[in-house]
Amino acid sequence: MRTSARNTFRCTVSKVVEGPVNAEVLMDLADGQHLSAIITDRSVKDLGLVPGTEVFALIKSTFVILAAEDGLGKTSARNRLCGTVKTRDDGAVSSEIVLDLGGGTTVAAVVTKESAESLGLTVGDRACALIKASHIILAVA
Amino acid sequence: MRTSARNTFRCTVSKVVEGPVNAEVLMDLADGQHLSAIITDRSVKDLGLVPGTEVFALIKSTFVILAAEDGLGKTSARNRLCGTVKTRDDGAVSSEIVLDLGGGTTVAAVVTKESAESLGLTVGDRACALIKASHIILAVA
Amino acid sequence: MRTSARNTFRCTVSKVVEGPVNAEVLMDLADGQHLSAIITDRSVKDLGLVPGTEVFALIKSTFVILAAEDGLGKTSARNRLCGTVKTRDDGAVSSEIVLDLGGGTTVAAVVTKESAESLGLTVGDRACALIKASHIILAVA
Repeated sequence: MRTSARNTFRCTVSKVVEGPVNAEVLMDLADGQHLSAIITDRSVKDLGLVPGTEVFALIKSTFVILAAEDGLGKTSARNRLCGTVKTRDDGAVSSEIVLDLGGGTTVAAVVTKESAESLGLTVGDRACALIKASHIILAVA
Repeated sequence: MRTSARNTFRCTVSKVVEGPVNAEVLMDLADGQHLSAIITDRSVKDLGLVPGTEVFALIKSTFVILAAEDGLGKTSARNRLCGTVKTRDDGAVSSEIVLDLGGGTTVAAVVTKESAESLGLTVGDRACALIKASHIILAVA
Repeated sequence: MRTSARNTFRCTVSKVVEGPVNAEVLMDLADGQHLSAIITDRSVKDLGLVPGTEVFALIKSTFVILAAEDGLGKTSARNRLCGTVKTRDDGAVSSEIVLDLGGGTTVAAVVTKESAESLGLTVGDRACALIKASHIILAVA
């Protein structure tokens, strides 16, 4: 499966919390990190998601908020992936920044160029990617 | 009211599934396709949504994930609109791709240029737009 | 036109920065606060946006990330609206939290219940809403 989502993480479902409309799916990444996604109950059933199911978490780079790692307080974003700036490409309005999370894993973010400048992010800097659980699409092979 | 949302679909509500906070609104498009949106219960009440209500589904082009139609497995994205690439405009960081869904309907997506290149999307190719239900805003006239 | 977007802010465009695909639209709110939105160039033209244009900024509550005001560092989110928790409604999976920004303005966020609990947000607490510029839809009357 090939998609335009710049971020595709292979995960294993660890827990599914079902509500009347939405469900929260908790997942383990290979390197001990975790992800949380909110999808509809209907999708949980359609995809047959249970603990142990292998899934791909798709995250569009425009859904990622970057933050300086230092002084980053608590937020409601259920997903926080911290790493080192690997590349930064500036356009006229937007910048694409890729964080190296270690273990061969990266996360790409598209932010406004003004934000990239305001955060002063350059290659080698530490930064964190904040991702709301409701912005993750899950896929099964 | 005109909006910056590049995608506005005229739909008819077919079903509303209410939870304590969120509701899922199922809709029919004119051409037999369907859309699903997650909005708050409060909005369902404010807009007076019941089966039969005519609504507009607003979808920002940056919320759309594109996927090659071939080999596209199951995903949690409740909305999948497949068509043919009609136009592709590249910027320095982003590309805008418009799919022709047939029947005069189109869907616009903004993805990173790297994704557009990686998918090799050119005019005439088949592709699908994946849209999470929680990314759709509903409007009534 | 009424929409399901729980957050609708009346603004005046102060500046438009155009790129080849996307444009950043800077806006003033009535109370001296500012918003920034990323929309396509095409939408800027379709809506005729220039400094002085009155617009409505539509923001879905699921796109808002909440953060404790204390110790909140820099993020790439171009929009930060801080206020006091006015209401909190918990569902099985999601919680809706409304912040009172003062001057009769509020911002609603839907986060996972686990996040609401982890942040310990209760009525009267200070908190900030973080909103990515690319998650705002603009509308003109």
